[in-house]
Amino acid sequence: MAKVNDNYLKLPGSYLFSTIGKKVAAYSAANPDKKIIRLGIGDVTQPLAPAIITALHGAVDEMAHAETFHGYAPDLGYEFLRNAIAKNDYVDRGCDISADEIFVSDGAKCDSANIQEIFSLDNKIAVCDPVYPVYVDSNVMAGRTGTWNPQTETWSDVIYMPCTAENNFAPELPSRTPDLIYLCFPNNPTGSTITKEELQVWVDYANSVGAIIIYDAAYEAYISEEDVPHSIYECEGARTCAIELRSFSKNAGFTGVRLGFTVVPKELKAGDTFLHPLWARRHGTKYNGAPYIVQRAGEAVYSPEGKAQLREQVAYYMKNAAAIYDGLSEMGYTVSGGINAPYIWLKTPDDMTSWEFFDYLLEKANVVGTPGSGFGPSGEGYFRLTAFGSYENTVAALERIRRM
Amino acid sequence: MAKVNDNYLKLPGSYLFSTIGKKVAAYSAANPDKKIIRLGIGDVTQPLAPAIITALHGAVDEMAHAETFHGYAPDLGYEFLRNAIAKNDYVDRGCDISADEIFVSDGAKCDSANIQEIFSLDNKIAVCDPVYPVYVDSNVMAGRTGTWNPQTETWSDVIYMPCTAENNFAPELPSRTPDLIYLCFPNNPTGSTITKEELQVWVDYANSVGAIIIYDAAYEAYISEEDVPHSIYECEGARTCAIELRSFSKNAGFTGVRLGFTVVPKELKAGDTFLHPLWARRHGTKYNGAPYIVQRAGEAVYSPEGKAQLREQVAYYMKNAAAIYDGLSEMGYTVSGGINAPYIWLKTPDDMTSWEFFDYLLEKANVVGTPGSGFGPSGEGYFRLTAFGSYENTVAALERIRRM
Repeated sequence: MAKVNDNYLKLPGSYLFSTIGKKVAAYSAANPDKKIIRLGIGDVTQPLAPAIITALHGAVDEMAHAETFHGYAPDLGYEFLRNAIAKNDYVDRGCDISADEIFVSDGAKCDSANIQEIFSLDNKIAVCDPVYPVYVDSNVMAGRTGTWNPQTETWSDVIYMPCTAENNFAPELPSRTPDLIYLCFPNNPTGSTITKEELQVWVDYANSVGAIIIYDAAYEAYISEEDVPHSIYECEGARTCAIELRSFSKNAGFTGVRLGFTVVPKELKAGDTFLHPLWARRHGTKYNGAPYIVQRAGEAVYSPEGKAQLREQVAYYMKNAAAIYDGLSEMGYTVSGGINAPYIWLKTPDDMTSWEFFDYLLEKANVVGTPGSGFGPSGEGYFRLTAFGSYENTVAALERIRRM
Repeated sequence: MAKVNDNYLKLPGSYLFSTIGKKVAAYSAANPDKKIIRLGIGDVTQPLAPAIITALHGAVDEMAHAETFHGYAPDLGYEFLRNAIAKNDYVDRGCDISADEIFVSDGAKCDSANIQEIFSLDNKIAVCDPVYPVYVDSNVMAGRTGTWNPQTETWSDVIYMPCTAENNFAPELPSRTPDLIYLCFPNNPTGSTITKEELQVWVDYANSVGAIIIYDAAYEAYISEEDVPHSIYECEGARTCAIELRSFSKNAGFTGVRLGFTVVPKELKAGDTFLHPLWARRHGTKYNGAPYIVQRAGEAVYSPEGKAQLREQVAYYMKNAAAIYDGLSEMGYTVSGGINAPYIWLKTPDDMTSWEFFDYLLEKANVVGTPGSGFGPSGEGYFRLTAFGSYENTVAALERIRRM
């Protein structure tokens, strides 16, 4: 008799953004006349840049002729894309990462969910709290997190590293020693960052205890300050303790195009075992490569035209971020983030819970945000707004919040 | 200290097609003057059909404008595609499958590798032998297969169902009772099929023992005979015992475009637990949807123009299949498959092993095929050729084999 993976049944409720989607759909159905502004889910709204559109059309044309048709992609991604990534994201920043350490995928969500698979079920994970839910949920599904405590809303076998106003939203080294450490900077959801010097402390710590850092740098394109690292490989010793995840979703608007990559340095080991061949084996066995046309679009991100156009796109969103940050500050909200990240993190007013503020904002201002508690217990009493709306909608949302 | 998933270390050697790729690359490097014809990996060679190219260009143009830009796709796929699939692949064939039972993905390889995740690690799997390696390998990685016996080349906890000339390449009901049964018809690699009546026996068996059938129908477009089912849901009772996997790779040439889907009927249970919400949860947590432009390309597969063009494309490959089948038969080879599938399965001559014949064919004829033993122990002494080359290359390969 077939049996299910019981770990799935331990997951409380549904995935955060599915829940938000359902709540918004229900409100819309009941109030069809209300125009809702969505600053909740981190989805982009600006169209793809012209250089990317040109690359897509060109690649589609190639697929129309037998001589230039492309079937199965190389397991780990096309050389043209891996070379562009290695040069632009790493070598040009002084990071020692080569093309054959880059694994192209269909996005950082999949990679951040799948990466735990190559590790033992005994490994203890440490996560920032609050944090992008996929890190914990994927480990729950694998059976690595122990039991759920509905009172504290925590898992018994997860090491939570609170990130709150008290520590300026930067995690402290954990008191229990973890095996896998998920770090995300610029952070989702708080929009906070740490300096290169602070990140070096984590790299040194991981090397000293034999832990692996899974470093999610999906938002690096939004960094505006000098001393904030774009890659963990800017730190000395990261090649022996860190895997880095990157996405094209936010720097190039690929949320609906799907492209990302993972860096696994050749000398990175867990115990005595090299991780590069393990992740390569997973790719080879369970994945079939990102679409050729999408990989060509990714290549265009690194062209001179693409770079210039995307700098403008990021600046557009960061203008929104500044508008939200300044607007809410003026209204008396306690606000952080928004300087090196497209996320603004605010303290809910009047001691409302995160979900109370969600409902309040949806009903009174018809604005959708994301409840901080959905990212972990220390997110309770906080709320995330994103800069990914249009400028007009962002300004309109602020005006509605002001009137609220 | 981080530790790896030891199950990965149990996998003998590398993924079959990676090994072939390396052998061919080494031969090419040593013999740069030889023109190699590849009838090995099941990759297509014909360009995308015009209707698909038009749909791709149209969708790319949509992504260039804010009003028609598409960000994150719905978790389970766009309605327009799920509706087209439900109507054309199921309702029109008399199968009771609705759009909300269809989960759109980036291909059947990923789905066939990931589907085991929603089941208990205690579950015993049964596979045809020989078979597409991903079914077993993904279960090895999960830790469901016991220990590897290098003498027999089998896993202690896998139930192998031999498919050889003796049983006309159709598996018999296993003597040990499995929990999960992987079936693939038309079969990869043997090219064999079973009738609807024979498949009904499997459905009845699965329902009687509480097993789940994972039915891989990636090659259904190649079926030419009347009594061969295109879907397991043509059988009575399949909704309570079967998951079906489908691909756009072979019917529409999407090996480099990446699109597939999985059907999980709403009433399908393992024990007391419905599987539909579990697979939905996996999609929602660990996957972010197939690209919008690719889903529009998938929709075009079901347009009147798309259907007509793809019928021609399938006919083109089946002409190759007939040429290989007839050509090898004339040369005295023992051949099967090729009638309802794009694969021709041949007995190696002179008691060569499969890999011996691989090397022989590569060196003497510069033709690449796939060793049967790579698909399981009962594939030893067999060899797979695919019909996915160009007609010119297929004819040229046959001429070389004739001269060999």
